[in-house]
Amino acid sequence: MSKARLEAFSDGVLAIIITIMVLELKAPHGSDLMALRPLLPIFLSYLLSFALVGIYWNNHHHLLHAAKHVTAGIMWANLHLLFWLSLVPFVTAWFGETHGGAWPTALYGVIFLMAGFAYNLLQTAILSHHPADAPIAVAFRGNIKGKLSLGAYLLAIPLAFVRQWLAYGLYVFVALMWIVPDRRIASTIEKHS
Amino acid sequence: MSKARLEAFSDGVLAIIITIMVLELKAPHGSDLMALRPLLPIFLSYLLSFALVGIYWNNHHHLLHAAKHVTAGIMWANLHLLFWLSLVPFVTAWFGETHGGAWPTALYGVIFLMAGFAYNLLQTAILSHHPADAPIAVAFRGNIKGKLSLGAYLLAIPLAFVRQWLAYGLYVFVALMWIVPDRRIASTIEKHS
Amino acid sequence: MSKARLEAFSDGVLAIIITIMVLELKAPHGSDLMALRPLLPIFLSYLLSFALVGIYWNNHHHLLHAAKHVTAGIMWANLHLLFWLSLVPFVTAWFGETHGGAWPTALYGVIFLMAGFAYNLLQTAILSHHPADAPIAVAFRGNIKGKLSLGAYLLAIPLAFVRQWLAYGLYVFVALMWIVPDRRIASTIEKHS
Amino acid sequence: MSKARLEAFSDGVLAIIITIMVLELKAPHGSDLMALRPLLPIFLSYLLSFALVGIYWNNHHHLLHAAKHVTAGIMWANLHLLFWLSLVPFVTAWFGETHGGAWPTALYGVIFLMAGFAYNLLQTAILSHHPADAPIAVAFRGNIKGKLSLGAYLLAIPLAFVRQWLAYGLYVFVALMWIVPDRRIASTIEKHS
Repeated sequence: MSKARLEAFSDGVLAIIITIMVLELKAPHGSDLMALRPLLPIFLSYLLSFALVGIYWNNHHHLLHAAKHVTAGIMWANLHLLFWLSLVPFVTAWFGETHGGAWPTALYGVIFLMAGFAYNLLQTAILSHHPADAPIAVAFRGNIKGKLSLGAYLLAIPLAFVRQWLAYGLYVFVALMWIVPDRRIASTIEKHS
Repeated sequence: MSKARLEAFSDGVLAIIITIMVLELKAPHGSDLMALRPLLPIFLSYLLSFALVGIYWNNHHHLLHAAKHVTAGIMWANLHLLFWLSLVPFVTAWFGETHGGAWPTALYGVIFLMAGFAYNLLQTAILSHHPADAPIAVAFRGNIKGKLSLGAYLLAIPLAFVRQWLAYGLYVFVALMWIVPDRRIASTIEKHS
Repeated sequence: MSKARLEAFSDGVLAIIITIMVLELKAPHGSDLMALRPLLPIFLSYLLSFALVGIYWNNHHHLLHAAKHVTAGIMWANLHLLFWLSLVPFVTAWFGETHGGAWPTALYGVIFLMAGFAYNLLQTAILSHHPADAPIAVAFRGNIKGKLSLGAYLLAIPLAFVRQWLAYGLYVFVALMWIVPDRRIASTIEKHS
Repeated sequence: MSKARLEAFSDGVLAIIITIMVLELKAPHGSDLMALRPLLPIFLSYLLSFALVGIYWNNHHHLLHAAKHVTAGIMWANLHLLFWLSLVPFVTAWFGETHGGAWPTALYGVIFLMAGFAYNLLQTAILSHHPADAPIAVAFRGNIKGKLSLGAYLLAIPLAFVRQWLAYGLYVFVALMWIVPDRRIASTIEKHS
């Protein structure tokens, strides 16, 4: 099975996920600035989800780069990841529309936690074709950011019922952690690819 | 005609089909867990259709791998398959929204049965350029899973009017049958590609 | 400028156009067969537009195959064609929802007539880099089907106000004319590509 | 990181942005010509945004052509640009639905101004891997059209509150300026690529 087509399909699904979220931003009937105010929480949840899905696209890109060939296991692990990410537009809309209610805020974390587990499954499927001590396998397995992200989601889910802004803050923290460039990992990948 | 562009277009259509189905999961206005309950049947039908379309994408991928070049016949057989699959979001929405009524459950089977026939037509168009006794042709023609799937759909359509859960069970059976890895076919393809 | 990216972008736009039309087929609330009846004209208009846009994708594919390199003129002519085709979902919805009223039936022809002119413009832009007597240029310019299609649209537009079913019949005729395989043109292209 | 996948993802997002805008053109219930009249401002705003996003796709194409390899900085600068462009369907809908109210007209300029800044950021990220006096760097940096576009948006934003048609005229001016072919730049790129 060719890697190119797996990437093309994943790119298509991720591009649609990231773009249909904007359909939740429905044009208000009023034409003054005040008409935009009710859209602010929807806009902020869109911004956050755009960043988090963008990060997945970026990491997915690096991960598939390490795949030597595509097995049935990798194909299904990839579809499984896309399934959880496909629920992001739904939970983003619920999160935005209820102005960050406790349950929507918690479910937001649950979906990204599941996507994170699905990503790890995909990583395991891809790395299983490399020797366990290959530099690329060590670089991916030692990935502290991935572990921190899962920890942040795990923490945010119960926090959503106590202090919602703390849960929201944790989601923003995950996004910023990934966007800030990480030269160390990039150089490890570059050296061994 | 280049195979790459036929694959790219099919990937695009399949990615959109699989992703716009999630638009049926409309964010509820309430923010408690109970607000999600009416969405459960829609979610389950989304999950099933995601799996079944994902299976088509996977098989489509393998099938086109066997195509030596793209003829007008293959092009139209492919568009014909995409047409039936493009009706999946509609029938999934009807199936989910009516909580699996008899007619929607039956139509669900009809659409996938037609897609199955369309897939066989595409397979015939592609294999017509291989000698009938080529290993790849034998491997595809002897495909028991494909025949079992068509049989399951044929059985589910009348069953939908008697025992709806049996029809639903057959659809789930088809999905599981394909997701469980099938090393035998994979190895046959590998050997001859 | 690379041809690959022009094709990829066009494939994306055409895949989305062909797929979002199905969103007009809204799942009815009733769950019996009668609930589907009001959807019949919308389904038929979807089927027709799916075929006509599919034909454009197919021809577009052949035409770009003849392009040696992509100039700014080709790029804009291509975008211009995509603009008219992007209006197909709108006119299909209007045509379907009004059960083929006179104006929607006429506008349907207008949009496809404009798309046809845009296609000819793109063809001229691409063939301008070939000598006028090159076999490929002769094959494309002598294209009788393209001229017949434009003629059918031109005829259908006024007919829509007199006998709507005649206009509709002309649209179906155009679709069938292209779907029926045309070995002569295919072989000319094959010989010279 | 491969340039091909960055291009494919950007193409996907841009194709979806350009195509979902047409969903705002909702089919009227009436079937006479008068039923289309309320759609005219929505159609005109669609036409303008289609042209402006098409221009971005075209320029994006040229710019990435100059990228030697894709760094994390380029990846994020590209996502940042796509974020602003993803807001175009929203502001186009607001602009069209309010028949060009003052605030929507101004916000239209703001979104394209931000997209323009994001484009310059991406250009800086890409050119940072070329020597400052490389012909390609000089050609891009001396880009008068880009500077004129930003100036036009800056001027249009306050003008929207005084003379809306002047702001609208400036947006149309930007679109026409780019669509008119510019052989000088094209030849510079050709010489050095």
